[in-house]
Amino acid sequence: MDELEIIRLMKTMAGKPPDGWLSIGDDVAVLRGRRAGVVLKSDMLVGKTDVPPGMTWRQAGRKSVAACVSDFAAKGVSPEALMVSIGIPRSLSDADIRSLIKGFGDGMKEWGVRLVGGDTNEADDVVVDCVLVGFSDRVVKRSGAKPGELIAVTGDFGRTSAGLKILLDGAKPDPKFRKSALASVYMPSPRLALGIKLAGRLSSSMDSSDGLAVCLHTIARMSGVGMRIDRLPCDVPSMERFAETNGYSVEDLVLYGGEEYEIVATVEKAGIKGAQAIASSMGEKLTVIGETTEPPSIVTMGGRSLRDEGWVHLA
Amino acid sequence: MDELEIIRLMKTMAGKPPDGWLSIGDDVAVLRGRRAGVVLKSDMLVGKTDVPPGMTWRQAGRKSVAACVSDFAAKGVSPEALMVSIGIPRSLSDADIRSLIKGFGDGMKEWGVRLVGGDTNEADDVVVDCVLVGFSDRVVKRSGAKPGELIAVTGDFGRTSAGLKILLDGAKPDPKFRKSALASVYMPSPRLALGIKLAGRLSSSMDSSDGLAVCLHTIARMSGVGMRIDRLPCDVPSMERFAETNGYSVEDLVLYGGEEYEIVATVEKAGIKGAQAIASSMGEKLTVIGETTEPPSIVTMGGRSLRDEGWVHLA
Repeated sequence: MDELEIIRLMKTMAGKPPDGWLSIGDDVAVLRGRRAGVVLKSDMLVGKTDVPPGMTWRQAGRKSVAACVSDFAAKGVSPEALMVSIGIPRSLSDADIRSLIKGFGDGMKEWGVRLVGGDTNEADDVVVDCVLVGFSDRVVKRSGAKPGELIAVTGDFGRTSAGLKILLDGAKPDPKFRKSALASVYMPSPRLALGIKLAGRLSSSMDSSDGLAVCLHTIARMSGVGMRIDRLPCDVPSMERFAETNGYSVEDLVLYGGEEYEIVATVEKAGIKGAQAIASSMGEKLTVIGETTEPPSIVTMGGRSLRDEGWVHLA
Repeated sequence: MDELEIIRLMKTMAGKPPDGWLSIGDDVAVLRGRRAGVVLKSDMLVGKTDVPPGMTWRQAGRKSVAACVSDFAAKGVSPEALMVSIGIPRSLSDADIRSLIKGFGDGMKEWGVRLVGGDTNEADDVVVDCVLVGFSDRVVKRSGAKPGELIAVTGDFGRTSAGLKILLDGAKPDPKFRKSALASVYMPSPRLALGIKLAGRLSSSMDSSDGLAVCLHTIARMSGVGMRIDRLPCDVPSMERFAETNGYSVEDLVLYGGEEYEIVATVEKAGIKGAQAIASSMGEKLTVIGETTEPPSIVTMGGRSLRDEGWVHLA
């Protein structure tokens, strides 16, 4: 399948743009202006490092969109348009290319975004750079936390890092845990609808995909607050069983994993009940894991300070 | 050099964002809204296919920005913000990474754009995906040509394809031609200032980087006009000498090359003098090469129809 056929497939998937938009087929894409701030995020997926064994190309395509969506979720912004630049190796079969493109379509449908442009190239490995665009004048920043607020997270942590240990390091899970751990790797679920609903109620927020500990340290540093963590946001029994069987620590799996597309946020104490009620009403959870404290920007748990450590490319 | 150090360098280069913008350091970038349409372009540079022998990493970094700038030039839009996602192989030295990043800086300075975000990854080959963002309500489309207009191009064609033949196929030029042909490969010069000045005077326009013939056919097809080409836009004596010595045809070099960052446009007959005067006043040229005709959308030269053929990845 050559570039022209790939562009044809992408164009079909993009469909007819709304009035005032210019989409695939001209030199640039144009979105009708809105006066609100233009919100942008790019995220590059590379086959070698971001597509673990057993992940289908369709899942990889969806994941490449999910990674950007997760940042929009944390900022409370609804994404509208997507650009997808791809590098495709000659060795990739036509069926695999179609599958990858279907995955972009899955993401577009799931999160309600419209493809408006991109670029198609040959490369030695599959490379997908997604750019998501939206409009908002109310972006929840990383820097807005104040001392005396609650630290809360969506979802569970540790399951994705367990899944990656199963796939990459041969860790042995029980069958039920295996299923949910692999699902969290293959089909990540950024909390977009929840993030948008919560936006006005969070003082700061960050996408957790570089790891929970990194998020906590980043928010603490950028907001100029300290943090005291009281509990780990995970399903304790299943994580403990998996960690024990395989010689890991639950703390490492939960704090230093990454690839989890959850929201790490701070909320005023008076606002937490309302925020949690919103989450419950959507079938989601928002778990309080600690409290922000006066500066300096140290993050502690059980009296020890947590390492500021997460996934670093090229380390 | 790891991801964190690369991000630090990029952040330094980005500098302090204007009021109302959010730049590198949060989950997303935000540009203050403008009511005008949001113009977007992404272009991916891949080491293997887009960085010819002898090109420095600094030139490659600049080229990755130039490719997007060229599309903005053809649309008559001033770009404002840049996102750069990169994949870097472990084998690339720190000096080369610094050089690549300096090249982004060269492009930013030359075309007045501000870095606002991106993503850093490990990959087997250097991959750079640049996304350029601007605001405009007056984008010159590919589809606006009418019968009886003039077809005009900026700059010269054929020199870049000659340069690539020298670098990749061992073609032999005379020394002076060699210098200008290689310069056009290593330091492409999109006509941004000219494109912006001409915007209101063009009925259609397209960036020529996929080749002149492809441009002509695309504008003809999307506008529903025919085209009669009367002359090739090139420096005839030097191109003829190079073509003859090396067994190429001037027509092939000029029409089916690509990687030239010129503007191919149509202009009403009454407007051509004014448009050319603008070009001259900027030290640039705008050469009339033919005329649009009634449909069907066939492009002819000397009574023959031109092939609709250009660079196609993965062909």
